[in-house]
Amino acid sequence: MTAHRIAVIPGDGIGTEVVPAGLEALQATADRFGLRLHLDTFGFASAAYWQRHGTMLPADWEQTLRGYDAIYFGAVGWPAVVPDHVSLWGSLLQFRRTFDQYVNLRPCRLMPGVRSPLAGREPGDIDFVVVRENTEGEYSSVGGRVFEGTDRETVLQETIMTRVGVDRVLRYAFDLAARRPARHLTSATKSNGISISMPYWDERVAATAGRYPGVRLDKYHIDALAAQFVLHPDRFDVVVASNLFGDILSDLGPACTGTLGIAPSANINPERDHPSLFEPVHGSAPDIAGKGIANPVGQIWCGSMMLEHLGHPEAAAHLLGAVEDVLALGPRGAPLTPDLHGTGTTAELGHAIAERV
Amino acid sequence: MTAHRIAVIPGDGIGTEVVPAGLEALQATADRFGLRLHLDTFGFASAAYWQRHGTMLPADWEQTLRGYDAIYFGAVGWPAVVPDHVSLWGSLLQFRRTFDQYVNLRPCRLMPGVRSPLAGREPGDIDFVVVRENTEGEYSSVGGRVFEGTDRETVLQETIMTRVGVDRVLRYAFDLAARRPARHLTSATKSNGISISMPYWDERVAATAGRYPGVRLDKYHIDALAAQFVLHPDRFDVVVASNLFGDILSDLGPACTGTLGIAPSANINPERDHPSLFEPVHGSAPDIAGKGIANPVGQIWCGSMMLEHLGHPEAAAHLLGAVEDVLALGPRGAPLTPDLHGTGTTAELGHAIAERV
Ligand SMILES: CC(C)[C@H](C(=O)O)[C@@H](O)C(=O)O
Ligand SMILES: CC(C)[C@H](C(=O)O)[C@@H](O)C(=O)O
Repeated sequence: MTAHRIAVIPGDGIGTEVVPAGLEALQATADRFGLRLHLDTFGFASAAYWQRHGTMLPADWEQTLRGYDAIYFGAVGWPAVVPDHVSLWGSLLQFRRTFDQYVNLRPCRLMPGVRSPLAGREPGDIDFVVVRENTEGEYSSVGGRVFEGTDRETVLQETIMTRVGVDRVLRYAFDLAARRPARHLTSATKSNGISISMPYWDERVAATAGRYPGVRLDKYHIDALAAQFVLHPDRFDVVVASNLFGDILSDLGPACTGTLGIAPSANINPERDHPSLFEPVHGSAPDIAGKGIANPVGQIWCGSMMLEHLGHPEAAAHLLGAVEDVLALGPRGAPLTPDLHGTGTTAELGHAIAERV
Repeated sequence: MTAHRIAVIPGDGIGTEVVPAGLEALQATADRFGLRLHLDTFGFASAAYWQRHGTMLPADWEQTLRGYDAIYFGAVGWPAVVPDHVSLWGSLLQFRRTFDQYVNLRPCRLMPGVRSPLAGREPGDIDFVVVRENTEGEYSSVGGRVFEGTDRETVLQETIMTRVGVDRVLRYAFDLAARRPARHLTSATKSNGISISMPYWDERVAATAGRYPGVRLDKYHIDALAAQFVLHPDRFDVVVASNLFGDILSDLGPACTGTLGIAPSANINPERDHPSLFEPVHGSAPDIAGKGIANPVGQIWCGSMMLEHLGHPEAAAHLLGAVEDVLALGPRGAPLTPDLHGTGTTAELGHAIAERV
């Protein structure tokens, strides 16, 4: 069996702390299932790299990363050193676009042993996945300023949606919904207020729906949908959203499941002509970085999503099962991190999960 | 004492149900405080008007409404008859722009007797106000489509921020924060992903902050902020946001306080050169319209905000106090509506509050 080639990019802040824990659990799973992983670690896409080189990435980054089957990513961003929009547009957002990772998949699941901030919610009540468009929409860098420094100063920023870009992510979301037991897709819109791009989104949703008669479809305006995530999170199965709306919903969803620390995400190129990238939803978290208390579960769960993507669904399920088993022990039975009301460290929790594997 | 001239626009759906309840409580308060209100009711800005006239508003609407001190508004939108973006851009969003109601003020408060969906939250834990920019930003109608019907189909929609537009709402928010005991302002941004307009927003926030050394300022990206509303709603006092972000946060906030049914909003022209407009946050709610079970509290609370704006803070506080007193009785002691776990009707709850006044 040939080895999967994985590029590991820890990045900044807690990214550098959770990645080792993630790799330990990943390697344990690979060993158990006889999979060979070839891991190369890169220091670029970090504030440290920026300080040495004045750029986030080496000139040949694209060629370098193209040689890998997947990218295992921590987090990037350290605003004290480099402004966020520079570090992010210079790395993560570049990767998503250059490698056409047009689906950002973000499962939101209330796990056993994790307390939801929502009253009375139990594991099983919250289990949906956000499918976020990941390459266009509100995240364009097209626009600019005029009349700078005067009272007429005006700033324009373009939202850009394309037929190709919208349709492909919608198809992915419908396909995913069609494969799940509930067969339910919710589209996030705001066509009552955002009067050009969002009615277009709705139109394409309606056009695509015709091909999926077995999928129950509904739509909510983003304001109402955010409210529903809190009031009725049990009503959702697959939620498809534009780049910005998906970003918001995929932080809000995990918050409803107790902590952002456990939420994974996959930046997927479904055609597999470029590597996909797996990163936890939490960022570099400067506020807790360096303390060794970051929750590694999001990063570990990313390993499970990566194994699935690489064609090993059993290994993926096994790793996620180990995560669930350890979380279910609760803060008394397992070294859970402070965000899970425990006193464990990143390394301890990562180790406990790797052991369980 | 001269009478205040109020234009009443019930609009669509539950708007037509909650407005009478709102007026009963408003009139009771006016009587008690010896205030004279001159109320004129208009049928435009509704689907019924659209069906008869093919437009949402009469040609002379602007002149007509300019003659009033305030507009007491229900809700507009009935998608089965007229598409939302037509009805809303043809009425409510027109009013906000034409009358330069550039501040949309939306209090989020956990009221006594109301159960929060957030575990363990008590009245007093959630009490903040969202200041939403209300005339520009993401809600522009500038943009369009090219290459229609082909694979190259591309849709552009402009976000437009102006120095004047951003600065004035920021000043309002800082002024408001400076007057409140906590003196804390949170700015909603997304400058890590939305790379032109949101860094500009941050810049103007920083520039304005210099004039308010007494106000503690922080900023969150909208994704993280949405998560914080659920995880730590007690951390907020005044939250200032762009048009779209304010829209999302001011539905999410009320959801965290138990029900959108109690949330009011004020579309304010601070210079008072045009009438301000007071409307509940909930919309026309076609799903429950016609059943007489809509919660009138949002509409009644709007009356309190309107009295405050018209220069009667004591009457405003008294009306809000009556609302709190009745809600505190709970579903056993008062005819609370189903969203508050009671079995009361719109009219019964409105009447109970008017009596209490
Ligand atoms: C109906 C809609 C256009 C409106 C808005 O988005 O402004 C509403 O959601 C609101 O918050 O007042
Ligand atoms: C860091 C930021 C640019 C990024 C995004 O908004 O896409 C992050 O919030 C995410 O969700 O991956």
